[in-house]
Amino acid sequence: MVLYNETMIILSTGDGKGKTTAALGQMVRVMGRKKTALMIQFIKGPWTSGEDTFSGLEIRKMGLGFVGILNDPLPIEKHEEAARKALEMFVKEKNIGKWHLIVLDEINVALSLGLIDIKDVLDAINDYPDDRILILTGRGAPQELIDIADLATEMREIKHPFADGAPARRTVEF
Amino acid sequence: MVLYNETMIILSTGDGKGKTTAALGQMVRVMGRKKTALMIQFIKGPWTSGEDTFSGLEIRKMGLGFVGILNDPLPIEKHEEAARKALEMFVKEKNIGKWHLIVLDEINVALSLGLIDIKDVLDAINDYPDDRILILTGRGAPQELIDIADLATEMREIKHPFADGAPARRTVEF
Repeated sequence: MVLYNETMIILSTGDGKGKTTAALGQMVRVMGRKKTALMIQFIKGPWTSGEDTFSGLEIRKMGLGFVGILNDPLPIEKHEEAARKALEMFVKEKNIGKWHLIVLDEINVALSLGLIDIKDVLDAINDYPDDRILILTGRGAPQELIDIADLATEMREIKHPFADGAPARRTVEF
Repeated sequence: MVLYNETMIILSTGDGKGKTTAALGQMVRVMGRKKTALMIQFIKGPWTSGEDTFSGLEIRKMGLGFVGILNDPLPIEKHEEAARKALEMFVKEKNIGKWHLIVLDEINVALSLGLIDIKDVLDAINDYPDDRILILTGRGAPQELIDIADLATEMREIKHPFADGAPARRTVEF
């Protein structure tokens, strides 16, 4: 059944829910096959989400939280540095080669905020090992990443309770 | 932080990837909060997927596989019976009340194939407990379910390797 021996790049973008959540589900699917999965988060900060405490998932939060909003007290340079470190971690983990799946969570957001450069990201992805899976998530995916993806999906919001002023709900959003 | 005390109904539809996968991710997020999650599958048949062998996820396959395609040898009545049993299981598990999250996977497909009736589904959902989460997945969601959903997302396909004739890939699609 496994006839597809090239790198598989999966991209999720759009304003709707389900991008990071689907990546978590993909990690489960991979790990159910007794293979390894790593998520590197480019934006999300050090607070705890439900998925962090689910045993067995390797999630590394490299971000410093919402950039430039919610009265963000940090200068943009700090966020740039954090995103650069996340990308460096990806290159290191890619080269170690132990992961069947690596998720670069919200890398699209890091790109659209200008925290990292598309050329550096393309360089980092360029020699991703064969027969492995790479997932790129976040709204506002640049066309360059859609172009190199094998499978790309837009999560489009049909309706969302935040639009009515409802707060983020534990176990749903985080 | 948890100010939202009503039932939360999340719907995922559309032709793109990520509907079931995001539901799996939501189960992980819920379970990371030490709460319980159950997936009832309305269409998927008895073959094994990666998520089935990931320890800790409660997934019940009530379907008999792809309905009416791939030279399906079964009469439609068998599929109707299977979908009805899946809905009955949902009602039973809802009433037992132990699950923080229940996923009705591909229930939209069961509806659009006419295996179950929208009225029966609405009746079954109607008294879903407060402060719990219900997820409805599958392409072709009927408007009645979008109407009752708190949060609805369309997974829209931007590009997909199957369109080029690539086979389904283990750890990605199943």
